[in-house]
Amino acid sequence: MPVITPSDAHVEIITANDTPCGPATGIRFSDSGGLTQFGAFVEVLPPGSRSSLCHWHREEDEMIYMLTGSVTVYEGGTASTLTPGQAACFKAGVPVGHFLKNEGTSDATYLVIGTRAPRDEVTYPDHDRKYVRDDAAGTTTFTTLDGTPGVESAYLLPGA
Amino acid sequence: MPVITPSDAHVEIITANDTPCGPATGIRFSDSGGLTQFGAFVEVLPPGSRSSLCHWHREEDEMIYMLTGSVTVYEGGTASTLTPGQAACFKAGVPVGHFLKNEGTSDATYLVIGTRAPRDEVTYPDHDRKYVRDDAAGTTTFTTLDGTPGVESAYLLPGA
Repeated sequence: MPVITPSDAHVEIITANDTPCGPATGIRFSDSGGLTQFGAFVEVLPPGSRSSLCHWHREEDEMIYMLTGSVTVYEGGTASTLTPGQAACFKAGVPVGHFLKNEGTSDATYLVIGTRAPRDEVTYPDHDRKYVRDDAAGTTTFTTLDGTPGVESAYLLPGA
Repeated sequence: MPVITPSDAHVEIITANDTPCGPATGIRFSDSGGLTQFGAFVEVLPPGSRSSLCHWHREEDEMIYMLTGSVTVYEGGTASTLTPGQAACFKAGVPVGHFLKNEGTSDATYLVIGTRAPRDEVTYPDHDRKYVRDDAAGTTTFTTLDGTPGVESAYLLPGA
């Protein structure tokens, strides 16, 4: 039975205690349907929340498709408003950080699609951090931008 | 500038002369945004049209996320109605054919997401055909289900 309704799907609830980016909800359709090659989930982002810290991926393409409300897409020095029926694409390896913020007054919902690469490196240019995930080695590591290991997650930094 | 509006995106128009499945329109967001690891596009399927012939992919995960209208998802011997906010997932390598048909009276629109594998094999169980695409070799080949080469595309068969 291939159809996945929102009530069938695994729902991930992120609270303000979990991240400096603010609360959000993820309806994890592709995981619930047994897919492994990409992640595709609906994110509900309340007013004031960010999708993530500013970051870019070395190995994984990303795309957002807007469903309801609006978000501001910050990428490098630019800010653009994304409204329903529009998409934003972030190609793997392009070294420009991005994040979304809901600067409106109602929830924003959008589909997030991202490749599931076996190894990825995520750079947080505004927070002096890189994150490396290597599934074959079973490791996840944070370093500073110059490679110094043994540092905390970008999401645990004061003021993140 | 990462935002892709429908008027920025490459639009593929399929007519009734192109395929036995009937007309359709594809708004190719991810291609237009330069992504290569997956395809993600909005398909507009008029009443009476099918998305494809019944098929399954050896190597590529697929997902549909319904936006407006409804479609019937045929998979193996089952038929399910997909309505806005619901998804359908088709895992690579699961040997059960599927296709969508718009049996309603208004256009159906949905996001189609599929991995871009370097090699894939697509089986058409109802049409005695397999299609093999090998990007490294630069080849695309149709055979019968038992491997006989030199046959026409499944889409060119009488009654397809």
